[in-house]
Amino acid sequence: MTAAKNAFYAQSGGVTSVINTSACGVIETARQYPEKIAKLYAGRNGIIGALTEDLIDTSLESESDIAGLRHTPSGAFGSCRFKLKGLEESKDEYERLIDVFKAHNIAYFFYNGGGDSADTCHKVSQISRRMNFPIQAIHVPKTIDNDLPITDACPGFGSVAKYIAISTREASYDVCSMAKTSTKVFVLEVMGRHAGWIAAAGGLAADEKNDIPILILFPEIEFDQNAFTTKVKEKVEAYGYCSIVVSEGARWPGGKFLAEQGTNDAFGHAQLGGAAPVIADMIKDTLGYKYHWAVADYLQRAARHIASETDVNQAYALGKAAVDMAIAGENAVMPIIHRMSDEPYIWEIRKAKLEDVANVEKMMPKEFITNDGFGITEACRRYLSPLIEGEDYPPYNKGLPVYVTLKNNAVKKILNTEFIL
Amino acid sequence: MTAAKNAFYAQSGGVTSVINTSACGVIETARQYPEKIAKLYAGRNGIIGALTEDLIDTSLESESDIAGLRHTPSGAFGSCRFKLKGLEESKDEYERLIDVFKAHNIAYFFYNGGGDSADTCHKVSQISRRMNFPIQAIHVPKTIDNDLPITDACPGFGSVAKYIAISTREASYDVCSMAKTSTKVFVLEVMGRHAGWIAAAGGLAADEKNDIPILILFPEIEFDQNAFTTKVKEKVEAYGYCSIVVSEGARWPGGKFLAEQGTNDAFGHAQLGGAAPVIADMIKDTLGYKYHWAVADYLQRAARHIASETDVNQAYALGKAAVDMAIAGENAVMPIIHRMSDEPYIWEIRKAKLEDVANVEKMMPKEFITNDGFGITEACRRYLSPLIEGEDYPPYNKGLPVYVTLKNNAVKKILNTEFIL
Repeated sequence: MTAAKNAFYAQSGGVTSVINTSACGVIETARQYPEKIAKLYAGRNGIIGALTEDLIDTSLESESDIAGLRHTPSGAFGSCRFKLKGLEESKDEYERLIDVFKAHNIAYFFYNGGGDSADTCHKVSQISRRMNFPIQAIHVPKTIDNDLPITDACPGFGSVAKYIAISTREASYDVCSMAKTSTKVFVLEVMGRHAGWIAAAGGLAADEKNDIPILILFPEIEFDQNAFTTKVKEKVEAYGYCSIVVSEGARWPGGKFLAEQGTNDAFGHAQLGGAAPVIADMIKDTLGYKYHWAVADYLQRAARHIASETDVNQAYALGKAAVDMAIAGENAVMPIIHRMSDEPYIWEIRKAKLEDVANVEKMMPKEFITNDGFGITEACRRYLSPLIEGEDYPPYNKGLPVYVTLKNNAVKKILNTEFIL
Repeated sequence: MTAAKNAFYAQSGGVTSVINTSACGVIETARQYPEKIAKLYAGRNGIIGALTEDLIDTSLESESDIAGLRHTPSGAFGSCRFKLKGLEESKDEYERLIDVFKAHNIAYFFYNGGGDSADTCHKVSQISRRMNFPIQAIHVPKTIDNDLPITDACPGFGSVAKYIAISTREASYDVCSMAKTSTKVFVLEVMGRHAGWIAAAGGLAADEKNDIPILILFPEIEFDQNAFTTKVKEKVEAYGYCSIVVSEGARWPGGKFLAEQGTNDAFGHAQLGGAAPVIADMIKDTLGYKYHWAVADYLQRAARHIASETDVNQAYALGKAAVDMAIAGENAVMPIIHRMSDEPYIWEIRKAKLEDVANVEKMMPKEFITNDGFGITEACRRYLSPLIEGEDYPPYNKGLPVYVTLKNNAVKKILNTEFIL
């Protein structure tokens, strides 16, 4: 039997309300295998922590703090936007990673992120073979954009979807109350620059018991101003009001984002973004309706207070599975969610090869968008609905959620050589 | 003993996540006094419903639907923005109200709103005396702006404050994770055009266990760009990031709103509002930090999913007290919350005379804002903290809150005369 080795875990890209839930799954599970995994080190600010040999010793964190990660949004060790490119192009970085892993006796690489980090994870596995230093590289999926292939859903998405569906329902009830003499149109801007998954979730606000007029502007559908304003007018005439969910990625024909207003602000800069104010103003201009608009931005992806229980359970299960797979000797894989049934929602963990995951974006299928381009179909509803099921409330103290801040003590440097990013 | 008379209830102005909770308190309590109150009619779309004789018969709503109002945001009978002016100036309207009340045997007038509606309520009481048709007019306080005098807090405010405090904490954790290589500044725009109560609630996100750098821009404090950007720089240098909560009512010296950008959009209109993007852009321009911004708008006042339990309890208690006061023979009064102790928070219902309430705005006291103008003091914290205490979660079905939509059947018109608004 070989001696236990250390493991490395890092968070990558935009954080979510449940990426720490996966971290919790990884760390709690790793602690169950002391004969295989000695210590689990986390990268401070993601992969940058590995490149700069700035590692965090998670063994110094208490059991209760690690358990608290399960209900703490954001990235507890810090994340980063730093993309490693091809093996040749980013050769120095990959070799540096292996050097740091070697110095710290790291044999397991857990990378928690989206499509880019799946690709990096895959390349770490390749370079380790090439450099003859064995590393088992396992990717833990995470992205609110829900655009990873093979897996039924991506941790982080279900909770954003729940937040957007609830917020759309709540704001719709509000504007409905005000419409007689005041606001008739409410516009909510949501994230999702390339794929309309999050925007689609706004459509869940309406159902058989909540007859709410909702129009969705997807990034997948070229914006047709006439068709849109005609539809808004129809809805306001039928219901007295209308709610609009617009993706930050919605585009004019030709590809320009709606959010690019083409105007300058007081400082002479290109106009500050926001697709919502553009849509709101367009409605005022063409139809004369009074409007309100909101931009949810970080609130949607950080909203741990109303996280989806399904999402939390899957985020934890995927973190746990990543470690279980490492222990089972797997390499260059990603645990995924496989859907067995829609209702009741039954799922199990399976695994995908990273070569099949990297650089594939899962877009909204055509059959999820209604023919008019402004709504979601029943098929889409069947897909989305279980992902927002259940409420996983955090504990509270004095009216505020109790989130954990870790000690994040540094591991003593061994190489102690400078590495310029 | 006199025969039972009917009662009238209406919702006024911007709705909240708990105005229906007060409606629930009014209706459930009125149903307990059948010997005094025969039927409770609600105004469809607020006072307009009375003026146009468009009354809703709440006796046709089931017990369970009325109970469901307790956890349903928005205004279940519709609200309106329609201000009655002085007794002489709006003479026709006041007389019409009395005519409608007389026709429908209405002896109790419950008006649920903010400062303007307290004034209207007061005048209804006066005109009823003058026109020799006795009406007991009781005002039920409601406003997220928290600017009514005498009462410790206004229903609706505590829940908005909780939402803003939680959202600020969650988004701050998020930006903290991203700050090393990406976003360093997060800006959240909140409601409150005249008073900074809601903005102040953002300050609760930081406490002894959550050392979060938060700068608040209050409508009460003239915006000092140099002092502000200097402060942002200090915070980012000390913490790596900074969160900013800006009131929609924040103003430049001279009184112009920050949100008025003084530029034109693609349609040639004055630039669409938003203080948050102005602040974000200013930071980018002067300090070069990457930013994200959000505008919460209706999401904050409709967020029943995370309502404050204190707020819900007070909203219900005030609705109940209004009816109890009417039964006790009171007129031209408003039930209020009287604070007996901060911690534990102990409060009781008392009453205020409408002549003392109408046209008085309660602003943030100077001692609630720190000397630098960007934060809240311990005194402010002691005041705010109990108002966000407790979580009153609505029931859920398939991942979404179950909110009630009433039947809202009309009462048969008796006058049936047209009234032009």
